[in-house]
Amino acid sequence: MRVRAITNRLGNAMILEIADILIAPGRQAEFDVAIERGLREVISQAKGFKGYKVNRGVENPQRYILQIFWDTLEDHTVGFRESPLFPQWRAIVGPFFAQPPTVEHFSLVTRSDNVSE
Amino acid sequence: MRVRAITNRLGNAMILEIADILIAPGRQAEFDVAIERGLREVISQAKGFKGYKVNRGVENPQRYILQIFWDTLEDHTVGFRESPLFPQWRAIVGPFFAQPPTVEHFSLVTRSDNVSE
Repeated sequence: MRVRAITNRLGNAMILEIADILIAPGRQAEFDVAIERGLREVISQAKGFKGYKVNRGVENPQRYILQIFWDTLEDHTVGFRESPLFPQWRAIVGPFFAQPPTVEHFSLVTRSDNVSE
Repeated sequence: MRVRAITNRLGNAMILEIADILIAPGRQAEFDVAIERGLREVISQAKGFKGYKVNRGVENPQRYILQIFWDTLEDHTVGFRESPLFPQWRAIVGPFFAQPPTVEHFSLVTRSDNVSE
């Protein structure tokens, strides 16, 4: 397997946002619909948005890991968070949160060739 | 964008292992090499192993998120952890850990079409 960095159209490596989310118990089915709607209808409009993935916990089904790919760190931390899209997104997903999500950013170190992002 | 579950050859959705790792300060370059070697030489031999990705923190460069895809939960929790591969893996990456990693498993809820896993 060969190492290859994911790059955006400027030739720079993309930034991965990982949000660690804990929702209120018993609301998984509603939240699954809400988070997908928020991603498709709101976040996908943001400049520098490149893609997303949502996973739900096996050991803890109230835990979700949201991964969003951005062209640059600032596309998320400034462009998105200071835009009117941010309150629209939080209005859709915020009511399900059991506590404020933990959000950090990451760069790619290595991956197997069959994993695209 | 269309929703599509990743499935293994049995038609079941794959399992994502996420390990949240904190390493000792100043050892990033050595750890980048070690974790890739451990994944390619050891974990990739495990039954049910499907792929991996490693990301390093921007806000906290001692933090790594390791994602490994498995055919089934038991391929990781029983097949790998109870095999001779597990101590081989820990011998390579364990010396860098600042604390025991947090490891949980996840199933896919949704993703954008351009994200493969």
